[in-house]
Amino acid sequence: MIFSTDHLRTLCAAATIAGAAAVAHAQEDPLPSWNDGETKSAIVAFVEAVSEEGGPDFVPVPERVATFDNDGTLWAEQPMYTQLAFAIDRVKALADQNPDWKTTEPYSSILKGDIAKAFPNGVKDVLKVVLATHSGLTSDQYAAVVRDWLETSRHPAKGAAYTKMVYQPMLELLAYLRSNDFKTFIVSGGGIDFMRVFTEEVYGVPPEQVMGSSAKLKFDIVDGAPVLLKQPEMDFIDDGPGKPVGIGTHIGRKPIAAFGNSDGDLQMLQYTCLPPGPSFCLYVHHTDAKREWAYDRKATFGKLDKGLDAAASHGWTVVDMAKDWRVVFPD
Amino acid sequence: MIFSTDHLRTLCAAATIAGAAAVAHAQEDPLPSWNDGETKSAIVAFVEAVSEEGGPDFVPVPERVATFDNDGTLWAEQPMYTQLAFAIDRVKALADQNPDWKTTEPYSSILKGDIAKAFPNGVKDVLKVVLATHSGLTSDQYAAVVRDWLETSRHPAKGAAYTKMVYQPMLELLAYLRSNDFKTFIVSGGGIDFMRVFTEEVYGVPPEQVMGSSAKLKFDIVDGAPVLLKQPEMDFIDDGPGKPVGIGTHIGRKPIAAFGNSDGDLQMLQYTCLPPGPSFCLYVHHTDAKREWAYDRKATFGKLDKGLDAAASHGWTVVDMAKDWRVVFPD
Repeated sequence: MIFSTDHLRTLCAAATIAGAAAVAHAQEDPLPSWNDGETKSAIVAFVEAVSEEGGPDFVPVPERVATFDNDGTLWAEQPMYTQLAFAIDRVKALADQNPDWKTTEPYSSILKGDIAKAFPNGVKDVLKVVLATHSGLTSDQYAAVVRDWLETSRHPAKGAAYTKMVYQPMLELLAYLRSNDFKTFIVSGGGIDFMRVFTEEVYGVPPEQVMGSSAKLKFDIVDGAPVLLKQPEMDFIDDGPGKPVGIGTHIGRKPIAAFGNSDGDLQMLQYTCLPPGPSFCLYVHHTDAKREWAYDRKATFGKLDKGLDAAASHGWTVVDMAKDWRVVFPD
Repeated sequence: MIFSTDHLRTLCAAATIAGAAAVAHAQEDPLPSWNDGETKSAIVAFVEAVSEEGGPDFVPVPERVATFDNDGTLWAEQPMYTQLAFAIDRVKALADQNPDWKTTEPYSSILKGDIAKAFPNGVKDVLKVVLATHSGLTSDQYAAVVRDWLETSRHPAKGAAYTKMVYQPMLELLAYLRSNDFKTFIVSGGGIDFMRVFTEEVYGVPPEQVMGSSAKLKFDIVDGAPVLLKQPEMDFIDDGPGKPVGIGTHIGRKPIAAFGNSDGDLQMLQYTCLPPGPSFCLYVHHTDAKREWAYDRKATFGKLDKGLDAAASHGWTVVDMAKDWRVVFPD
């Protein structure tokens, strides 16, 4: 029997469809770490609605922009922000070269281990110390310092590498959105070049899709090599109202889905979900003192107070971590 | 004759390869508007080298970042920057609402048509006027104003819509790079939200891959609707040393290919091509007074002086527009 090209093409198409169906069946639950229930159903319903060509809520692929906070949304932020742990270790490592730190705040409190006294204003204070300990480094040198620290440091409570302190259900959610042609972005109050060291490997988010707080950079050519030098001055704080501003500058398009866990994400969720049209906003509510941590309205890191009220009044989805997540961290 | 699944798979693979070869043959010249010669050969040789898996110059897909200047590199910038023509028209349109402009520079010179007097410092002056004429608008309102202007305005010398004043060979180059898994970015001194109105449709570059100069934005909720309001203050000037800085912040990864046409692009080309490793830098040299314009070392807009020297000393590719381009503009 001889197959014509057309016949072969038909056979191939049939084989491809059969293969695709088998794959679809094997992977039929894209969110296996999410327990069945309202939260999971709401996510799936939204993604299916915007992906349904010809449907009333269809959104063209280029507009499928989803933004994620990082600390407390994609990875743990207790007992303190990971970048704060990093900054403290850097202060200790550089203390000998900076003898004046023994008598200068916030360094002296950091060196004495009094973290609450060192950082009374949360993320802004942390960024100030990060700036001071890294200005003068090139972007590449800084990335190497972060990479080394992430490889060697362990979480104080869980003993795991920080890059394993990520939420398995959120990794699945990122992948699920991308498999439905969403472009996933990180929009974090944390340092942009701190995150870019690991976001591609850990989250599948390339550096150009990461927004964060940043120091000013200076271009120079040193010994014939072009470098970007970190300056001791903040350029942008990507928190609160800074999040929609950063999205406006960096993406230039409103997201249709936004994911956060604190009041610092509120404006990003408002920007995404207040306009008419299909959109999805979700808060991760930390309710799981046993497997992770339980905190919200009175937390030092990751305070979720106005955000909870906004979620209730706008009907945004709230993850009850203890109830909605079958597992929290990867194996 | 019965085909096993494996057999069918082999046949299908063979058919796919044969089909791909046929397509490749049909499209064998990805740059039909480029005349054969050294310039075209250099482009193709670079793209093939970095795409050759296992080859000595292979570059993994995520690192295939290419950055393009806009004015004078992707579209015409004579007799003045397009955004300057836009700014002049905006000043005229808003003059009645701003009676003081009759006696205030640079507005009075603009209204009198004395452009040289109005903008002695080039792009920075232009941006100042653009700021003044658009602060208080939301991003969406501003985009609508630009869209309307682009639809109704015509180039003073060529009579074409500005979005047709783009270079056909560069459109092919953008597409050729993308077909080899490059991610293409625009890095322009022009206003970021001015460009984003047309870059996706005209260049195939989505808004999140466009960098430019920008005004500060302010997030607000007006009548229940979230908006980004343009502020009367520059946030970032994406020109000269600002280009590698913008790339560092926005992309977070060194390009391996960069394309420009003026001294304002020099630092971007240095950042891209001075480090060791496979890279490609190209200057478009405007040598075609007949079909376009001829200008370089003494130009008011798009001065190319130090850049020409740097290209000669580093061996960067220089497009001789008159010689290298079979056509300049699309039909």
